[in-house]
This record gives sequence, C-alpha cells and structure tokens, in this order.
Amino acid sequence: MDFDREIYLDHAAATPLDARVREAMDPFLADQFFNPSSPYAPAWETRHAFEAARADLAHAIGAKPAEVIVTAGATESVNLAFTVVGEKAHVVTTSIEHSAVLACAQAYAHTLVPVNHHGLVDPEAVRAAITPETRLVSIGLANNEIGTVQPLRAISEVVQQLRQQRLMECNTTPLYLHSDASQCAGQLDVNVSTLGVDMLTLNAAKIYGPKQVGLLWVARGVQLQPLVLGGGQERGLRSGTENVAGTIGFAHALQIAVEGRKEEAARLADLRKGLQRQLLAAFPEAVVSGHKKHHLPGLLHISFPGLDAERLVYLLENEGVYVATGAACAANKATRSHVLEAIGLPPEVADGSLRLTLGRLSTEENTARAVEIITRVVRTEYERVGS
Amino acid sequence: MDFDREIYLDHAAATPLDARVREAMDPFLADQFFNPSSPYAPAWETRHAFEAARADLAHAIGAKPAEVIVTAGATESVNLAFTVVGEKAHVVTTSIEHSAVLACAQAYAHTLVPVNHHGLVDPEAVRAAITPETRLVSIGLANNEIGTVQPLRAISEVVQQLRQQRLMECNTTPLYLHSDASQCAGQLDVNVSTLGVDMLTLNAAKIYGPKQVGLLWVARGVQLQPLVLGGGQERGLRSGTENVAGTIGFAHALQIAVEGRKEEAARLADLRKGLQRQLLAAFPEAVVSGHKKHHLPGLLHISFPGLDAERLVYLLENEGVYVATGAACAANKATRSHVLEAIGLPPEVADGSLRLTLGRLSTEENTARAVEIITRVVRTEYERVGS
Repeated sequence: MDFDREIYLDHAAATPLDARVREAMDPFLADQFFNPSSPYAPAWETRHAFEAARADLAHAIGAKPAEVIVTAGATESVNLAFTVVGEKAHVVTTSIEHSAVLACAQAYAHTLVPVNHHGLVDPEAVRAAITPETRLVSIGLANNEIGTVQPLRAISEVVQQLRQQRLMECNTTPLYLHSDASQCAGQLDVNVSTLGVDMLTLNAAKIYGPKQVGLLWVARGVQLQPLVLGGGQERGLRSGTENVAGTIGFAHALQIAVEGRKEEAARLADLRKGLQRQLLAAFPEAVVSGHKKHHLPGLLHISFPGLDAERLVYLLENEGVYVATGAACAANKATRSHVLEAIGLPPEVADGSLRLTLGRLSTEENTARAVEIITRVVRTEYERVGS
Repeated sequence: MDFDREIYLDHAAATPLDARVREAMDPFLADQFFNPSSPYAPAWETRHAFEAARADLAHAIGAKPAEVIVTAGATESVNLAFTVVGEKAHVVTTSIEHSAVLACAQAYAHTLVPVNHHGLVDPEAVRAAITPETRLVSIGLANNEIGTVQPLRAISEVVQQLRQQRLMECNTTPLYLHSDASQCAGQLDVNVSTLGVDMLTLNAAKIYGPKQVGLLWVARGVQLQPLVLGGGQERGLRSGTENVAGTIGFAHALQIAVEGRKEEAARLADLRKGLQRQLLAAFPEAVVSGHKKHHLPGLLHISFPGLDAERLVYLLENEGVYVATGAACAANKATRSHVLEAIGLPPEVADGSLRLTLGRLSTEENTARAVEIITRVVRTEYERVGS
C-alpha cells in the first residue's frame, strides 16, 4: 500500500504495525531469539523482557501482571474466557457480538439479549436474562460493525447486585462479566476497574501492534480451564513457548494507545464528524447506524439504500479507497450481517452499507479526499441504478 | 548474543530467525498489513500470499494445501490433533514424549508404551498397547531430549494392520497415527507419505522460522474438533485472523530446511561426531544417551556422572557457551527429566546431563572451541568435587 496515495478506511479490520512497536520487537526477531525457559543468562534476559512486557500490559489497563494471560489473539482469549462456563451452566450475551463470542456461547445453554435500533443493550434486559445457572455474561465494549459502545459499567452493577443476591440465597454458582474490547484500546478507556469487568479481551493487531497476539485479563479468583495443554506456560492455562517478540510489541502498542487515547479519540471524532456531515449532506437518504453519542470515535457505519455495498467497495478500491462492508470477519462469507439484522435495518438499506473506520493513517487531507471520492462513486452508482 | 564470540549449543530450544525468512516476512510487517478477509484487492493479495504459503508448507511435506492447518505453534497443533479422541476413547503414546503430548494423553484413558535404554519404542509394544477403543497413537519422530528417532514407518504398518483387522471385525472406531516432528525438519525426512502418519505436527520456531507458528497436517478424512471457535478460519478448526507474516515466514523456513536437509544433516552429524569423540576421550566415564544409529544428527546428550548439570550450565554460560540441561520446557521446573527416568539413567548420571544441540550457528571452529571450554569446565568441576 502506498500510504500517500491510497486511503485506508478499514482500521477496524487491521492496523499497520507502529514503527516504535516494530523497533521494540526487532532485537527479539534477531539476536535475542532465546527460549525464555532456557537456563542460561541470555535466555533469562529474554524471560525478564517478556515478563516486563506482561507487567506493562497489566499496568496499561490498571491490572496486576499475574492477572494477564498472553494468547495468540482475541479469538483465543474469548475462547479461554468461556472456559469458566461449566457443562450445565448458562451464558448471557447479546445478539450483536463478534462471531468469536457467539460461537462460544452457542456451545452452551445461552440467552442472546436483544439490542435497540442503535445497537444499545439495556442493562435491565441483561438482568432479566440472567438465570440462577448463569456463570458468564459476555458483552463487547464496542460493536465492531456499527461502533455502539455498551453501558458496561451499568451492566457490571447489575452483575454485582445479582452476585450479592446469590450470596444471600446460598447459590454458590459464580457469575462473571467478560468483555471483548478488541476494537477499543486507543479510543476508549479500557481500565478494568473503570469498566467493572472480571475478564477483558484485548488484541494487539487492532492497535498497531503485531498480529497473532492478544491477552485475557482475568480478575483474581476466576477459575479458568486450560485451552491448550503442555509445558504449563501462562500459569498452565496456555501452554507453548512464549511469544516474546509479539508480547513486547503488544505491550508497546498498548502503552502508546492508552497514553495517546484522549487526543487521538478527539482527533478521530472530529474527522468522523466531518465525514458523516458531508456524506449526509450529499446523500440525505443515507442512514447512519450506531448510537449517536455512545459510539467508537473513529467508526462510521453508513448505508446507501438501494445500492450494493460490494460494488461500492470495488469501485472505491479502484480509486484507492479501502473500506469494509460490515465486519471483515464476515466479509468473505456473503451472508447478511447479524448485527444489522439485530438493529432492524431493512435489507435494502443493509445491503448498501459501508463501514468506514478512521485511525492513525487518517488525516484531514486524506479524509477530505475520501469524502470527495465516495461522493462521486455513490453519485455515479445512484445514477446508474436510476434512482 | 554476539554470534562471533558466544557459542550457541541449544538449537533444540530455539533457533534464530533466518535472514531470508525475515526478508520474506518484512512486507507483511509493513505495508501489506491487511486483514486477509477484507474485501478489497490489496487484502486479496494478502490472502493469496497466505494461501500460497500454505501451499508451500504442504508441498514441502508432500501434502495438499487443504490438509494443512496453521496454528500458533507445536503445542497447539498437538492439542488439535488430540481432538480426534472422543470422550471414552483410548490413546497410546510413549513414556518419553514432549509434555504437550503427555498432558493431552492424560486427559484421556491412555497407555504409555515404555522405551528401551536407547529411548527406542518397539513397534510390537505399540501393537500390544492398542485396544479396540484406541483412536489415536501419538509418537514423536525424534525425542527432544536424547534425540532418539523412532521407527515410525514400522509403527505405521502396525497401525495399518490393526485398521484392517478392525474392518474385518466391524469395529468402526477409527485409528490414527500422529507424530510431533517439531525437532526434525531440516535434519530428518518429514514427508508425510514416507513417514506413514495420519497427522503431523511441525513448528516454525525450531527451524529458523518465526515463533508462535506451527502446523498440523491432517490426512483427508480425519475428523478433528475445533479448539478455538469464532470466525471459522482454517476450515472452522482454528478461528482467529490468520497470521499472514508468520505463515509466510514458516513456509520459507520449511522450504529452506527441507531443501538443505541432506547436506546440513551430514554436516551436523560430522560436528556432533567430533564433539562426542573428543568429550568421551577426555572423560571416559561420561555417558552418551540416545540410540547410536537412530538419532537426530545435531543432538548430543552427554552425562558427567557425579557432576551437577545446573552448575555446569552456569559455568559454561560464564564462558559464553549456551547449553541445556534436559529439555528447555522443563528447565525452569527443577524436576528430573521423565525421559531420562524412562531410559533408566541412574539419578547420579542423569543429574550431570547436558543436551548439546548443534545447528546453523555451529561451525567447525566454534564447535572445536566448545569442546575446549567444556573439557576445561568439566575437568575443573571434577577436581572441585574431588573425584
């Protein structure tokens, strides 16, 4: 990709590796290649660097190092979180979760809490869905397709109240709140105390870190089962030689994301606002989905009723503008987005939906150029289909 | 690590990234960062590169691309292989397997076939251990501590005979042979037809490729269960965004390893022979473990009875020579090696064991220097303990 000429508006699908992150990883891709379990001093240094990175990851989210399990990505983290659910237990999640959460939930008795037209979950609906057998509530902090940010703090309070109630009723079934915040670091506050969760999933690949690295933060006392058995690394929960370079890269990426969060979130919100305003001005019939106030600053989900999003993606790609139709994970499956169905977007609107996600590659200049190109392409398409 | 001054004799624990591999990965750590599921052309190119790498991996082991599942390392691959074992089924493995295989086997009814003093498994003992309920036989091609190479072909014939017998007896329980060959590519033939296995585990990190990438080759018809649920990547067996850079690196590393195998194996065998001859000449009481003929060319397991291997590692490290005591995976656990127990090495011999593994960083010059340093250190230690 030519970063000067081409315009990347798919930061929610993948982010380029930050140069500072790359630099931090480089020694561990070169002469510090040791197995951190090896018994000589240079390998201990590798071990120390790895554990320091774990501590940095923990620190960035207000947690303790021993509570952070490094995984091979968000999907694995989510699967690991779901191991708290026993054989006959019940799970509560929402109808708009990422496929990783939905697939895990489907392995158990589960309830999908619906969302409103803005994709927002009602904490009282979560309360109503929790049964005495529920062990896990898993709700993503921000939706990856429409960007709606959930009232996690309020949901956490519901969960805490129900825990108290269980104590009084001598129901010893634990009840935990997990959140996949893969899309959020760098745009929203992902401090575990602020969020009020018991488990949190993060992903390096979405925050300008390396691919194939994620973490699961687990509050003290939460009992997980190992997903991968073997040498007993990661407190026996995730065996396999540690990913030293990847973890160090992740730690740097998360630190950078958290430190620059407020400024970058404000910048992206401004860019997104301009993008939305100008596209809606050009196409008053266009529909913006997601909650007006509670949304990811950099994500704009916009539908052009009557148009075919796949054609738009193709036409925009020809102009060097890269956007998504719905979630990238579902992109090569040619199925309609379950998220857009859940918020009740009519099919003829949903089919013309683009997800534009701004990020560090976005500038005022290239966003303005993107508006111009998108406007031209959408206009030509509307003329072609004759509406 | 200063490759000129220091001497690395722990290639079985970790290998440095090959410069050619690094070069092949670089574009995917830079401007080709796209999510391979994204719908625009540059992301398709990423997808193509990823699938081409899968094809290269398959080709290198004489398999078809659709049979290769990319994982986050050998341990995950082994765990995935074990998903063929159903709830009430039985597993056969050996007493000297890597902890990943042993931990997986322990989750099921299982039989550990013993090995002889050279660490060799008798195919007839494998036959005897297989019950009508056995679904999986998992035997590593070469042991990671003592280097003994198993008669996998003969074991494969036993498995095939028993399959035939099951057919005749209308026993529909499938019987599969899996092998973890993580230590082997680049030193032994890992062609799946030659080996006669149904599943094969390989690991990039052991063959000068990137860490945190492995593969499971699975013959057509073998039914696995997913370890990680989600977006349905890797034929639904291993969800999560694909590790494009890692897989491309792995493919290059495996190609280089397979193409250069004969020459490098001969070179390492020569170096190892010299190392063994000179150390045994200096210390006639030293014990070399592993099979004399059927062993990994680059691995020398040598015990100095009466000495403490951990002290030796420390003293050698001070001289810039990096060696292992037993397997790196067990190194920080201070337990006696289960492999050395299984081959009946007396504790006073086992406790003075070093594993020296030669590889691409080994030269005639630095191996000769290693002999000199090890001889001096071991001699001083014997003088100190007064024997």
